[in-house]
Amino acid sequence: MNDVIALTKTLINKKSITPDDAGCQILFKELLADIGFTNETMVFEDTTNLWSRKGTKQPVFCFAGHTDVVPTGPIDKWQSPPFEATEKDGFIFGRGAADMKASLAAMMVATRRFVEDYPAHKGSIAFLITSDEEGPFINGTTRVIDTLEERKEKIDYCIVGEPSSTNLTGDVIKNGRRGSLTGTLTVHGIQGHVAYPHLIKNPIHLVAPAISELAETVWDNGNAYFPATSMQISNIHAGTGATNVVPGSIEIVFNFRYSTEVTAEQLQQGVVDILDKHQLHYTIGWIKNGLPFITAEGSLIAASQEAIAETLGIDTTLSTAGGTSDGRFIAPTGAQVIELGPENNTIHKINECVNIENVKSLEKVYYAILVKLLS
Amino acid sequence: MNDVIALTKTLINKKSITPDDAGCQILFKELLADIGFTNETMVFEDTTNLWSRKGTKQPVFCFAGHTDVVPTGPIDKWQSPPFEATEKDGFIFGRGAADMKASLAAMMVATRRFVEDYPAHKGSIAFLITSDEEGPFINGTTRVIDTLEERKEKIDYCIVGEPSSTNLTGDVIKNGRRGSLTGTLTVHGIQGHVAYPHLIKNPIHLVAPAISELAETVWDNGNAYFPATSMQISNIHAGTGATNVVPGSIEIVFNFRYSTEVTAEQLQQGVVDILDKHQLHYTIGWIKNGLPFITAEGSLIAASQEAIAETLGIDTTLSTAGGTSDGRFIAPTGAQVIELGPENNTIHKINECVNIENVKSLEKVYYAILVKLLS
Repeated sequence: MNDVIALTKTLINKKSITPDDAGCQILFKELLADIGFTNETMVFEDTTNLWSRKGTKQPVFCFAGHTDVVPTGPIDKWQSPPFEATEKDGFIFGRGAADMKASLAAMMVATRRFVEDYPAHKGSIAFLITSDEEGPFINGTTRVIDTLEERKEKIDYCIVGEPSSTNLTGDVIKNGRRGSLTGTLTVHGIQGHVAYPHLIKNPIHLVAPAISELAETVWDNGNAYFPATSMQISNIHAGTGATNVVPGSIEIVFNFRYSTEVTAEQLQQGVVDILDKHQLHYTIGWIKNGLPFITAEGSLIAASQEAIAETLGIDTTLSTAGGTSDGRFIAPTGAQVIELGPENNTIHKINECVNIENVKSLEKVYYAILVKLLS
Repeated sequence: MNDVIALTKTLINKKSITPDDAGCQILFKELLADIGFTNETMVFEDTTNLWSRKGTKQPVFCFAGHTDVVPTGPIDKWQSPPFEATEKDGFIFGRGAADMKASLAAMMVATRRFVEDYPAHKGSIAFLITSDEEGPFINGTTRVIDTLEERKEKIDYCIVGEPSSTNLTGDVIKNGRRGSLTGTLTVHGIQGHVAYPHLIKNPIHLVAPAISELAETVWDNGNAYFPATSMQISNIHAGTGATNVVPGSIEIVFNFRYSTEVTAEQLQQGVVDILDKHQLHYTIGWIKNGLPFITAEGSLIAASQEAIAETLGIDTTLSTAGGTSDGRFIAPTGAQVIELGPENNTIHKINECVNIENVKSLEKVYYAILVKLLS
């Protein structure tokens, strides 16, 4: 299997919906063992992870990725079966094509080519592969990293294969991500019949001014790497359906995407201050989905930008926009981390696909980066 | 069946959950035919109604009521089976005991006693009985009244048997009800992922200041008969459950209970003005659940207050508080309308019950009112 397109298709054909790996890692273990890697399968609860390494020296260059994919949605809306890779008009269609089985294939093929071309390369090469990236991300990358940290095994450079690009492979590299903080708020009132307003404390009425203030608050102005912190209420629910009964409480879920200018603790305090100012009776819970991280500069970004320019002849934009990725678990160890993968315009959607030329380009770029950093 | 308690129990034992009459009206037709009434069953869609009248002259005195009851809720929380009338500690327990099968029984027994005692009474006596009061109230009293209006058959005095009392029968008479107006509002925004706030218009954020203003608005100050108009939001829903997706719209249901100082149209315009001021993109629908009505004074109230004072030795408070009732459909014809029934503290609840002494008192009061107005 030297062909990145064939390997992409093989991976798509494995129905690996989170957290089911569906044999992708078994295949990778064989391919990596063939070229001298030492495989270590780490099973945590329902999740199978692979840590595979060739070499014992620093620097450690790591390809990180996930074999799991999101569910297909309504299958009858797909133009071709989502778990049968289908070539059409220069694209490969299938669930996971762009997120991120093409990246895994490109990592594998580029690595094999590199170790064959440079058998005496510097440092080490590693693969960190999980099947829990699209799910609760509890038993995946974060626990592999915990294990590596415990035994002081350090990654120096890490490329996460998330589909970072807009049109052409490499036109965008993600060099950081905003933090994500979710709050779950219940505001309590007193339930009652609309006909007896003096017996009611309507939690919907009570919370409205606080929502206005939360929505208007400027949490920070961002910085050179991050846009301003943003708060969005995603869910609000109160009422039983009966039109004549005022509910006793209202449930609100909101999410911060935040820059490195504030901390999760500061945001939590800011919310609590506003709720208290409005004299609300409430309970609140928090989920820290991920800390913000940034790889501001360094040899990984430089090597990647040069590799893209030399191989494909295009400029690269650095970005911290978009959702979260497993990079947030790797960056805190001190590694330089970027995300570099194919175009992301169809990920998680019906008829997910990836441009065949972009996949071939990605393999070349990965190879060129390995050459720059380890040859 | 001369005993009001026995008849109350017989009615409770009929499982007449809205709109099922469960044979209550068949029983009433027999009892009324026995004492010279002419029965007219009016079926509209799923609802059976009874219009029964004795006499052809004015004034027409009408007892109005409903045979249907609300559902039981969790049956295992009842101390006795809800559709098996059970006597305990001076109360009759069962669904519909207070709302309003005891009233129906008292109307029937008082009427029989009156026509036997005063065979040459003045005017006419009528019964308007529906099985749609607790439901959508589309095919019940309102359609019977439409039919009577078409043939110019007029009611002069109407006692609705709704449980109006607080502790003792007759301590409160309802001589009017507030209007009820329900609004269903959808505010539109633009859906999107929380990670891309510049592509989103969050309808939850957008509507919050308008909710605050609606909640703070003074719509009127009420008058001698009515408390101030009240607006309550009873339901608010937005969001799919996903914490990272801002929904495209928010659904809000609110209800006005309003006095005779404002009209439904003025309230609707007031809401629209506030929504427009906040530059919202919205759709709104309205349901006029009932116009306000008031029977400010007249011979029905006077006769009722005297009857209660003479029979039971207590004073009566006039009130327009509480929910809506079918009185709203009868009052617009020009009839004097009051609601007079037993205590209402357990209606619609688990272990609904009615005080046996209050039921006996109610029969005596109904009888005394008939004597005052028609003998």
